[in-house]
Amino acid sequence: MKVEDLIERARNGERRSIARLISLVEDGGADLAVAMRDLYPFTGNAYSIGVTGAPGAGKSSLTDRLVARIRSADLEVGVLAIDPSSPFSGGALLGDRVRMQGHATDPGVFIRSMATRGHLGGLSLAAPEAVRVLDAVGNDIVVIETVGVGQAEVEITDACDTTLVVLTPGTGDAVQAAKAGLMEIADVYVVNKADRPGSKDMVRELRHMLQMSDAEWKPPIVETVAIKNEGIDELWDAVEKHRSYQQEHGLLEQRRRRRIVHELKEIVAERQRLRLETECAQLLEDLATQVIARDIDPYTAADRLLASLQP
Amino acid sequence: MKVEDLIERARNGERRSIARLISLVEDGGADLAVAMRDLYPFTGNAYSIGVTGAPGAGKSSLTDRLVARIRSADLEVGVLAIDPSSPFSGGALLGDRVRMQGHATDPGVFIRSMATRGHLGGLSLAAPEAVRVLDAVGNDIVVIETVGVGQAEVEITDACDTTLVVLTPGTGDAVQAAKAGLMEIADVYVVNKADRPGSKDMVRELRHMLQMSDAEWKPPIVETVAIKNEGIDELWDAVEKHRSYQQEHGLLEQRRRRRIVHELKEIVAERQRLRLETECAQLLEDLATQVIARDIDPYTAADRLLASLQP
Repeated sequence: MKVEDLIERARNGERRSIARLISLVEDGGADLAVAMRDLYPFTGNAYSIGVTGAPGAGKSSLTDRLVARIRSADLEVGVLAIDPSSPFSGGALLGDRVRMQGHATDPGVFIRSMATRGHLGGLSLAAPEAVRVLDAVGNDIVVIETVGVGQAEVEITDACDTTLVVLTPGTGDAVQAAKAGLMEIADVYVVNKADRPGSKDMVRELRHMLQMSDAEWKPPIVETVAIKNEGIDELWDAVEKHRSYQQEHGLLEQRRRRRIVHELKEIVAERQRLRLETECAQLLEDLATQVIARDIDPYTAADRLLASLQP
Repeated sequence: MKVEDLIERARNGERRSIARLISLVEDGGADLAVAMRDLYPFTGNAYSIGVTGAPGAGKSSLTDRLVARIRSADLEVGVLAIDPSSPFSGGALLGDRVRMQGHATDPGVFIRSMATRGHLGGLSLAAPEAVRVLDAVGNDIVVIETVGVGQAEVEITDACDTTLVVLTPGTGDAVQAAKAGLMEIADVYVVNKADRPGSKDMVRELRHMLQMSDAEWKPPIVETVAIKNEGIDELWDAVEKHRSYQQEHGLLEQRRRRRIVHELKEIVAERQRLRLETECAQLLEDLATQVIARDIDPYTAADRLLASLQP
C-alpha cells in the first residue's frame, strides 16, 4: 500500500493502518521520511504525557487508570509503551500489554508497544515521530510509558509536554531521583503505592528537595494507589494545571521549539551517517586497517573521513 | 597540567593522573582528542571483558571475585563501572564502590566508576576510550561492569573482547535474554547465585536455546556463587578459552575491526554535529520557527540544513 493511502486510512481511524505507520517508525526505512512529510500538516493538536520511573513503581497500572480518567473526559488517547531495546525488559512489556487489555475494545484508545532497534536515529527520533503519528490520526492526548531505565528513558521524556516521575515509598527512589538530576525533568511527582509505609516521609523528602530548587514551576506531588484507583483524579488535575501553566507562560512553545531543534539535528546526523556509509565505505575500511595497525589514531582517521566527505 | 605530562605520569602508574584521563573521557572536552591521539600508540595490549546482566544478578560481587582471580595470575587489571547516566542507578553504583573496596590497597588494581553525561558521542565513544586509557597505562585486563539495563548496556558490551551475561536462577532471565537477542552478544553465560533453587533448570534451558543457535562459538554456561567464591576459577577458564578460540580463528581481529569502524563513524558524527551547531545556529532557529508554524516539515527542514552545510 502506498504511504499516502496508509495515512488516509489511518486518519479515518483504521487501526491496522495506524499500527503500520508506527511500524514504519520502528523500522526507520526509506518510507519513513515520506510518511513523516505527509503526516506533518495534520499534527500539533495532541498533548503528550510521559510516564517514567524505576522498575516496579507501577507505571503500567498508573497509565491504565490515567487512560480511563482521560476517557471519562471524552478525550481520545493513544498510548505508546516504548521498549528501548533492552535485553531485560521483554517481561515488563508483556505485562503492560496484558494489564492494558481493559481498554482493548474502546475505540477511543489506541495502545501500541514499540521497539526501536531498526531506527538509525534511535529513540530520540523514534519517540517524537511515533507521537506525531498518534497526533495526526486525531488523538487528544498521547501517553508515552517507558519501560526500563537508563539514558534512553530520559531522552523519551524529553519528547513530552508533561513528564510524570513515578516513585515508590520506602525504596530510596527520591534520593536517587535528586542525585541524578531527575528534578530537572519531572513536571509532576507521583508517589504511587501510597498506602505503603513511608509514603508521607517520601512526600516530605520530595517537598524539602523542591524547596531548594529555584525553578519557576514547582512540581506538585500526587499520592496515588493505582490498583485501587485512588488519587487518579488529583493526578489528572495536576497534569492539566501544568498544561495551563505552560500555556500561560509561553513555556509550551519554548519546550516544543527545543524539541524541534533537537530533532532537526538528529535527522541531519542520521543523513550524514548514511552518506558516510555509502560514499566512504572503502576509505572507512582502509582507515580501520591503519588504525588497527596503529599507523594512525582514531581521531586522525576521523579527520580524513571528514575531509573526504566535503565535495 | 599539559595532556602530554598527564599521560606520562599516568603511564608511570600515578593513579590520580589515570583518573584525570578518564575524567577527560567523561567530560568529552577539547583536550580529549589530544589525549586520545597521544595515548593511542601505547594501546593494543589489554584484553577487555564486559560484565552485563539484569539488576540484582550480582554483577558487582562477581566482578570483585573475578578481579581477585585475575590478580592471582599476576595480571594487572583495571575496572570500569559504567553508569549510563541513569536516573535510578546511583544507588547501585554506590554499592559497587563499597563492595570493591577490598582491592583498594592493591596497586595492581585500578577501579573507577564513570558517567558519560558530558560526552557528546555518548557511551559508544566513551566506553572504548576509557578502555584505551586503562590499556595504555599497562593493564593486562580491563573489566567493564555495566550498571543498569538498556540499550546503552548493549552498546558497552560491544566495546569488549569477551562479554559475560550474568543471570539469576528463578527469575525468567534466560527467556528474556533469548527474546531480546542477547544470545548474539553473550560469549559466556554466568548463572550466578547457583545455590538457589532453579539453577539446574536455568542451565538446561540455556543449553537448549544454545543448541538452536548456529553460531560457531557455543557460549559455555558457568555456575557461580560469587559471594562464596564458587565457580570463579571455572569462569576465568571460560574467559581464557573464549580468548584463545577467538585468536585461533582470527575472530578477535574481526571483532576489534568492527569496533574501530563503529568508533570512526561516531567520531565523524560528533564532529559534524558540532559543525552544525556552530555554523548553522541561526538557520537552525529559523527553520525551527517554520516547522513549529507547520510551514515546512522536519525532514524538509533537515534537507535545507544539509544543503547549507556543503561548502
